Amino acid sequence: MLIVQKYGGTSVGNPERIRNVAKRVVRTKEAGHDVVVVLSAMSGETDKLINLANQVCENPDPREMDMLVSTGERVTIALLAMAIHTLGHKAQSFTGRQAGIVSDSVHTKARIEKISGERVKQALKEGKIAVVAGFQGINEQDDVTTLGRGGSDLSAVAVAAALKADLCDIYTDVDGVYTTDPNMVPQARKLDKISYDEMLELASLGAKVLQTRSVEFAKKYNVPVRVLSSFNDNPGTLVTREDADMEKVVVSGVAYDKNQVKVTVTGVPDKPGVAAKIFNEISANNIIVDMIIQNIGEGGLTDMSFTVPKTDAKKTAELMRKVVAEVGAKGVAVKEDIAKISIVGVGMRSHSGVAAKMFSAMAKEGINIMMISTSEIKISIVIDAKYTELAVRVLHETFEMEKAA
Amino acid sequence: MLIVQKYGGTSVGNPERIRNVAKRVVRTKEAGHDVVVVLSAMSGETDKLINLANQVCENPDPREMDMLVSTGERVTIALLAMAIHTLGHKAQSFTGRQAGIVSDSVHTKARIEKISGERVKQALKEGKIAVVAGFQGINEQDDVTTLGRGGSDLSAVAVAAALKADLCDIYTDVDGVYTTDPNMVPQARKLDKISYDEMLELASLGAKVLQTRSVEFAKKYNVPVRVLSSFNDNPGTLVTREDADMEKVVVSGVAYDKNQVKVTVTGVPDKPGVAAKIFNEISANNIIVDMIIQNIGEGGLTDMSFTVPKTDAKKTAELMRKVVAEVGAKGVAVKEDIAKISIVGVGMRSHSGVAAKMFSAMAKEGINIMMISTSEIKISIVIDAKYTELAVRVLHETFEMEKAA
Repeated sequence: MLIVQKYGGTSVGNPERIRNVAKRVVRTKEAGHDVVVVLSAMSGETDKLINLANQVCENPDPREMDMLVSTGERVTIALLAMAIHTLGHKAQSFTGRQAGIVSDSVHTKARIEKISGERVKQALKEGKIAVVAGFQGINEQDDVTTLGRGGSDLSAVAVAAALKADLCDIYTDVDGVYTTDPNMVPQARKLDKISYDEMLELASLGAKVLQTRSVEFAKKYNVPVRVLSSFNDNPGTLVTREDADMEKVVVSGVAYDKNQVKVTVTGVPDKPGVAAKIFNEISANNIIVDMIIQNIGEGGLTDMSFTVPKTDAKKTAELMRKVVAEVGAKGVAVKEDIAKISIVGVGMRSHSGVAAKMFSAMAKEGINIMMISTSEIKISIVIDAKYTELAVRVLHETFEMEKAA
Repeated sequence: MLIVQKYGGTSVGNPERIRNVAKRVVRTKEAGHDVVVVLSAMSGETDKLINLANQVCENPDPREMDMLVSTGERVTIALLAMAIHTLGHKAQSFTGRQAGIVSDSVHTKARIEKISGERVKQALKEGKIAVVAGFQGINEQDDVTTLGRGGSDLSAVAVAAALKADLCDIYTDVDGVYTTDPNMVPQARKLDKISYDEMLELASLGAKVLQTRSVEFAKKYNVPVRVLSSFNDNPGTLVTREDADMEKVVVSGVAYDKNQVKVTVTGVPDKPGVAAKIFNEISANNIIVDMIIQNIGEGGLTDMSFTVPKTDAKKTAELMRKVVAEVGAKGVAVKEDIAKISIVGVGMRSHSGVAAKMFSAMAKEGINIMMISTSEIKISIVIDAKYTELAVRVLHETFEMEKAA
């Protein structure tokens, strides 16, 4: 098999851990597989570099920022290659450029455009273990780019897709994907496998195991991804194409997100073009709206509520006060202490009454639901933040997530 | 003018110092010059990286070592470009590769083969300040190489030669080249200018201001180099082609070197091929011999003395014991506590009696001279190490080096 293994910052956080990763890599090689390793920078290193930048400059130029922060992965790939040599195996490090990872030119959040991987393939042919710098690529102008936070996951999946690898193992500090946050619900169960779509919903809902774009990429190129821990030998969770087994499970996981606020524009005249005006204004400012609801009120006036990231709350409120004046609405209210709770499962497609069961569970605990949104495989609700733990626990129990299918 | 400025590790050792370098660079730009900056890594950074390597591996692979240690300069070039932006000027960083610095493949001590500098020229044309990573290049295989310790000086001079710069300013933590070590002789005087050949002799004699290869390169391509401090505005020392003024000065400087030992092979049969045998053995082991003398003794036996670096003393003694047995010599003696004292000056060519004056000065102080070697512009003697300070001081006085020409 050709296996791509990705190790995150905590897994390569110091020389001892790098030596441990080398052992793990060599073990896979000695089991008869070809191995390509993709690495992050040592944990804390990228923050240290960003901090240096902030000490010389208020708004660092993105191209220079990429030149700066792309150094962290070069350090770990060189060190890992050395550590593998010590164990008597051949290994060679590759920068993003040397691995042929070509991206667009949107510095600090570039998108991968193509991967040639010629030198990596050649190294594998020569029996070497290839060690590739994650998080970075090169644009057409020959400048270094970076793929944004968590970009090393994406590098690994993209390299796996380009090399047609049989498996992409993402080593992290948790040993798989859980039904929910085990720190919140002790009964949380590790999933053996999960579909790309479910993983996408969970990733975008704030379960920080895998970067969202890497899951999209894995889905697009059908790369089997396994999430596992570099600190133990537990089997991990396989993220893969949907299969019949998965459909039997109604709810695979419950996620929560406390990083949004609810903005309500009250007394909006109920006429065409007003909603467009509100959301055009927001998108023109690159603010991402998540949930939207509209309550039709009395006398042709409506209330329009939506959620935005906490970091954009102030900006959004300002923009809305301007819109209120322009369209003759009543006012703007921002509610800070909210949480979005979501249940996710491909089984929802074929099971009815899931939403009703969720809402009843909330009602029974006296938890008020402020907003609802649904997709084919997800139901999200917004509630008061103080009920987050209670809601997650109750839903985990209601849908019997602690039991394997 | 087109000016290349090189700043060493202490000059860019922290964010505050980087901001200061930015100011200096911008001042030169605002005076109407085109500026290319060449940087070292922050002081201590390269050692930190080497230390990491030693923690994962006993004998790090040279290619991986270069991948590792070349990151330090990428950090400083990005930070300096950002700091220049803050001052309202355009700047762009370039790795060795991006600047087109092509070297051979001798990792960790590569030699520059050519510099295209296309992107740097383009940046200058666009009114930008170009910031180039020192110490690094790229080989034909597209792998990163480094030029050895002090390699950033060489990068600066080579870039200056390739761009046909009018001046190459080497900023360091001393403010020029002195007649001798000012810590040893308070009367030591900063030289306004010095010839390439004199600088070469001084550099190779252990005056650590400029890396030897960079001076050779400057001489070859006739690049005027100025040594000055980044911590003050003193005028520094110009290293340049020999001119008539320089010839007037008999002795420009006095240098000392305590890092050699004297090895003597005694009772060597005085016949052809014996000396060749001794020095072939040494050079086959990559040990560099500096001074050599042969004393013809009684009965067709001679003593052969030579100096080698302290670090090679043990190895050399071993080799010589083998040779002694083979050629039927008497024995090997190693003298550790010696110092080489040298006076340097292009004026020696046209002035006679310099050596006699030097030896008399030593005799007057009762300092025994063990070895002598001379070149056209240099006289070196080996003495007991305990007289180092005394000899340097006396020679400084004898040749009135405290006085400007």
